[in-house]
Amino acid sequence: MRGAVIHAPGDIRFETLDDPRLLHPTDAIIRTAVTCVCGSDLWPYRGAEPIGDPHPMGHEYVGFVEEVGSEVTSVRPGQFVVGSFATSDNTCANCRNGFQSNCLHREFMSTCQADHVRIPNAQGTLVATEEHPAEELWPSLLAVSDVMGTGWWAADAAQVRPGSTAVVVGDGAVGLCAVIAAKELGAERIIAMSRHASRQRLAREFGATDIVTERGDEGVARIRELTGGIGADSVLECVGTAEAMRQALHCARPGGNVGFVGVPHDVAVDGQELFFSHVGLRGGPAPVRRYLPDLIDRVLDGRIDPGKVFDLTLPLDQVAEGYRAMDERRAIKALLTP
Amino acid sequence: MRGAVIHAPGDIRFETLDDPRLLHPTDAIIRTAVTCVCGSDLWPYRGAEPIGDPHPMGHEYVGFVEEVGSEVTSVRPGQFVVGSFATSDNTCANCRNGFQSNCLHREFMSTCQADHVRIPNAQGTLVATEEHPAEELWPSLLAVSDVMGTGWWAADAAQVRPGSTAVVVGDGAVGLCAVIAAKELGAERIIAMSRHASRQRLAREFGATDIVTERGDEGVARIRELTGGIGADSVLECVGTAEAMRQALHCARPGGNVGFVGVPHDVAVDGQELFFSHVGLRGGPAPVRRYLPDLIDRVLDGRIDPGKVFDLTLPLDQVAEGYRAMDERRAIKALLTP
Repeated sequence: MRGAVIHAPGDIRFETLDDPRLLHPTDAIIRTAVTCVCGSDLWPYRGAEPIGDPHPMGHEYVGFVEEVGSEVTSVRPGQFVVGSFATSDNTCANCRNGFQSNCLHREFMSTCQADHVRIPNAQGTLVATEEHPAEELWPSLLAVSDVMGTGWWAADAAQVRPGSTAVVVGDGAVGLCAVIAAKELGAERIIAMSRHASRQRLAREFGATDIVTERGDEGVARIRELTGGIGADSVLECVGTAEAMRQALHCARPGGNVGFVGVPHDVAVDGQELFFSHVGLRGGPAPVRRYLPDLIDRVLDGRIDPGKVFDLTLPLDQVAEGYRAMDERRAIKALLTP
Repeated sequence: MRGAVIHAPGDIRFETLDDPRLLHPTDAIIRTAVTCVCGSDLWPYRGAEPIGDPHPMGHEYVGFVEEVGSEVTSVRPGQFVVGSFATSDNTCANCRNGFQSNCLHREFMSTCQADHVRIPNAQGTLVATEEHPAEELWPSLLAVSDVMGTGWWAADAAQVRPGSTAVVVGDGAVGLCAVIAAKELGAERIIAMSRHASRQRLAREFGATDIVTERGDEGVARIRELTGGIGADSVLECVGTAEAMRQALHCARPGGNVGFVGVPHDVAVDGQELFFSHVGLRGGPAPVRRYLPDLIDRVLDGRIDPGKVFDLTLPLDQVAEGYRAMDERRAIKALLTP
């Protein structure tokens, strides 16, 4: 098989690799339908995370089952499946509590920018569609496996309720999907913080009612102006930097909620400040598996179209260009077709 | 009138002071029925918070209304009233959202260890009982004005649900009241972390099903043993130190909740650790006013008896001995009778 391998910051190569094979009776092998580059892939690409030895990349996938281990009965060869970037047995205590991305047998996917992928914990991880979905739906189903699931989690963690006001910090693919989620969950007012015209347009198309271009303290002041002086009920932090977290916490009203879904880098929250704000804070890797059946239905019913976040499509062998385009912010998110 | 004044760490004096008078039409003056010393009063007493000029102390009170300003119609002279350590107009946006302790007109009480007290925002702050309650109920009604309200908030912020497992960190008066709250909210298992025999006894009497005497990592390990290896659904952090917060966060299961109600001192929460834990975190000064009508009913009906946290009763003029006894942990909480 062939897939992407990172060798050093800025150095992504498309290489021939050993074909994946079943290592455990709980594994499945899929043939990738489409895959993509994630904003979080840019951390090592930019040298902001250690890389170590060269290794495959990618954690988003939809595809066709080719082979299943002896203990996998929930999906069968030939089916179209959607999974999550975090695999889960879906039976342990954490899974039963709805936090499948903290499954006691969790393995994070990391080899998905390839034409074939081994899926651990396949029984609990993969959800098959009843029929093969039309190819134009593949991008949206792919989005569900990570960015849409993560945007949903941001809205869930930030306790978006019907009639409430939601602020989305971050206009990357996750932030844009978070706008979709806030709308689906009934937010009346959705304020997207974005300074890029193309992303603002997509945010509006997805349901944003207001755009705030200011950042930092100016952005916070603008949010307060828009929310009767007290701040928003829910803030969806979709970046992961200290500045974004600070902005998110200051945009929430007393007793409001911040959901934070970008992996935090050098973020520390001051206990006393959090205390006097009354703001509730919850984050983490999205429990995508919890949302998969519902989100797949929403895509198949045409209610949501998160695949629009892919504004660049490349053949898989041009994966390196996908990284470059996202790094240079020429693309929101790059779709890769094997 | 006469009341307690702090001059320096360890130096509490009972002094003659100017009689309180109505400063605003929203004020009321009460004659104190009973008041007390709070764990948080020990921070300046121990020199852990700056004191500045000598000033009165105390923020817990129940009493009889003596005089009301022209805009106060909800209570009248002669009535027995319970309030909160944080005053609130109960009409602003934050109050309407249930966060009265973040009222836009909030004033923290600070002169209550005295025989008379001026109450700002009296209309929104004070709740009168229908009749004068029996004197033996005064300590429990006093507890409602702060420690019981704060324990309730800890359980609320930690999202204690019927059938859940709750851990209480801290065996001071607030921690013990948090045990009461967890029980009233239906927790099936309530684990109190305490190493003091008298406090353990009271925790059990209030509803604790288990006692854990270990602290720090050993305490966390013991909690995990007791909770199927994953941690507790809810953790009620009732101390405010970095060590207590760390312990609380590590005792919660993935996706569980920590409610933190002790004013944090030198507490910083690592963003990445919080992220991967999936734990929800909310704290703050308790919105006691939200809970007052319900908690007063629970006391008057005899369902709860938080007044048992007072294990030392002194005449108000011996307030300095109350501080000493609590500082030396000879007393959980000192009741003061004018």
